[in-house]
Amino acid sequence: MLTAVLRGGSVGFRKGLGAWKALSTSRCDGILRSPPLVSLDVVEDWSTRFDQDYGEMPASLNQSNELTAALIDGKAIADEIRSEIATEVSRMKTSIGKVPGLAVILASQRRECQTYVRNKVIACEEAGIRSDVTELQDCCSEDEILCAITNFNENPDIHGILVQLPLPQHLDEGRMLSLLPLEKDVDGFHPLNMGNLAMRGREPLFISCTPKGCIELLLRYGVEIEGKRAVVIGRSNIVGLPTSLLLQRYHATVTVVHAFTENPEEIAREADIVVSAVGMPNLVRGSWLKRGAVVIDVGTYPVEDPNSEYGYRLTGDVCYEEAVKVASAVTPVPGGVGPMTIAMLLLNTLEAAKRAYNFY
Amino acid sequence: MLTAVLRGGSVGFRKGLGAWKALSTSRCDGILRSPPLVSLDVVEDWSTRFDQDYGEMPASLNQSNELTAALIDGKAIADEIRSEIATEVSRMKTSIGKVPGLAVILASQRRECQTYVRNKVIACEEAGIRSDVTELQDCCSEDEILCAITNFNENPDIHGILVQLPLPQHLDEGRMLSLLPLEKDVDGFHPLNMGNLAMRGREPLFISCTPKGCIELLLRYGVEIEGKRAVVIGRSNIVGLPTSLLLQRYHATVTVVHAFTENPEEIAREADIVVSAVGMPNLVRGSWLKRGAVVIDVGTYPVEDPNSEYGYRLTGDVCYEEAVKVASAVTPVPGGVGPMTIAMLLLNTLEAAKRAYNFY
Repeated sequence: MLTAVLRGGSVGFRKGLGAWKALSTSRCDGILRSPPLVSLDVVEDWSTRFDQDYGEMPASLNQSNELTAALIDGKAIADEIRSEIATEVSRMKTSIGKVPGLAVILASQRRECQTYVRNKVIACEEAGIRSDVTELQDCCSEDEILCAITNFNENPDIHGILVQLPLPQHLDEGRMLSLLPLEKDVDGFHPLNMGNLAMRGREPLFISCTPKGCIELLLRYGVEIEGKRAVVIGRSNIVGLPTSLLLQRYHATVTVVHAFTENPEEIAREADIVVSAVGMPNLVRGSWLKRGAVVIDVGTYPVEDPNSEYGYRLTGDVCYEEAVKVASAVTPVPGGVGPMTIAMLLLNTLEAAKRAYNFY
Repeated sequence: MLTAVLRGGSVGFRKGLGAWKALSTSRCDGILRSPPLVSLDVVEDWSTRFDQDYGEMPASLNQSNELTAALIDGKAIADEIRSEIATEVSRMKTSIGKVPGLAVILASQRRECQTYVRNKVIACEEAGIRSDVTELQDCCSEDEILCAITNFNENPDIHGILVQLPLPQHLDEGRMLSLLPLEKDVDGFHPLNMGNLAMRGREPLFISCTPKGCIELLLRYGVEIEGKRAVVIGRSNIVGLPTSLLLQRYHATVTVVHAFTENPEEIAREADIVVSAVGMPNLVRGSWLKRGAVVIDVGTYPVEDPNSEYGYRLTGDVCYEEAVKVASAVTPVPGGVGPMTIAMLLLNTLEAAKRAYNFY
């Protein structure tokens, strides 16, 4: 229930809005109550709200009429797409003697960042795409990143540039991403790309790889999107937000659930399509899902596992064992969205190169 | 219920996607099933789904425990803001001998467009803001609009430029809006502004006037937004979309309802805050509202009325007589969001001038 307290304009600010006064001196918003938007930005903290312990499955899910959801095999689809990309790259090489080139700027010694970049480089190699990695120290300056961006921007053999996220905290991620040249922004994180993704009648130069991969999975598995209720859990600039915008372009009725959402479980349960992109293992239990829902698990979270090759394994947001008993189709982690993200990156790079060479 | 038909990749395209093949020749998306986004864009047609006849009020609303919703007096708040703007403009004039300047490009002989522009000009005058209108013929070319934009862009006394929408159909509205210089885009319709509105950590140069006005009304009436469920009905680039993005920046849990939404009534009834921006009289009946909801009616639709000064009057999307019995607060039409939109336009223009002169 909303408690609409009508206080005739004498509304005090609540938590999170403290920065308003500091910022408002440089605006004429003293006239308004509404603060600068960045002053509203707060850390999305799910962990205090949800118990990460993966306890017993609710008895209600353990019934005899259990569904066994179809596995949405992202790996198989991604392999197919990568093979088609390799063919296209080969055709390009034969026709004009050029191949697409992807540049990666890596400024993090975090294990998973290193792994992501290594996987991207291997995928490029396999597709015949040139890759070029600039490794910077954790303590690098914004100028060093800018310099790397400029070098790659001036290099005509590089058609896509990505800055591996997350960046170390002392760097202004948003500023760095804004400096990427639009026609090489293969991650699609530039705000102009985001605006063009959001607005009907417009086409972004690139659609972010993960959202693009999610939609491709839905389309290939024949999941109807138009008119269906989709709930996107998480609203990061790189996954949750663009996924919600993209689903809306496909005419889904989209609700974005975030860390401030009351009763996220109840809202998720209304959805025909659930996309979870939080990065919190087992956040989405079986009880969060409507029977027959399609579940796309974008969450990847490294958990220690001494038996794994790298000492850890990836787990998703969705409690897979419970979800398969309720949903009609689920992506596994790993092997679901992850491989699609890389395939879409290769495809965006190919697309950038085709545009650059006017090769179709 | 979703009928997730898993057809192993053999999915045919459905209505609305016909343009895909034509467009895909210029992209490498032959590899993907997902078409260019603009090929998905279809006309939002509410009228075939909802009966516009304003029939009897459902008996269930006619109970003795009727609420009588507070009227959200947009006109009074807008007047207050306009008076504060006038004071600021006067201070600017006294201090640096300059006033803000707003340019309007009007390329429509539609009655309501003419009225909107006239109202903006009068509002500018009252606030001490210079206004300059370029009137073009209905049949004008894109070059003529571009020429008008360029002239205003080069004029240092003009700080805000707006193109009055809708433009005649032969003109590419999106292209025209993209050509507006960012620092004078006081309507905030440029896709870069939209991207910066959508993405956390970023601040648009201007927030579109109507969404900004809606939020200001909610804040001034003490309506809690954070964590509340908000349903935005309509997803136009100029109102529905930016309003949904702005509410999300304020940490509402936002669902966007559009012409493809199944059971919009049911979804709207979940909302603590309903913003309707469709332009269809009486679309939102009392039965669409949860008891105690706050209702912002952005819809303005001219209906013939020989008793009115201009031969017509404006009516909203919300069936006001029913809404006041269910909601806790409602904006009237006229006198709700409309005056706020104009006040926000003046404020954005003032803000643009302050930036230009570095006057704070």
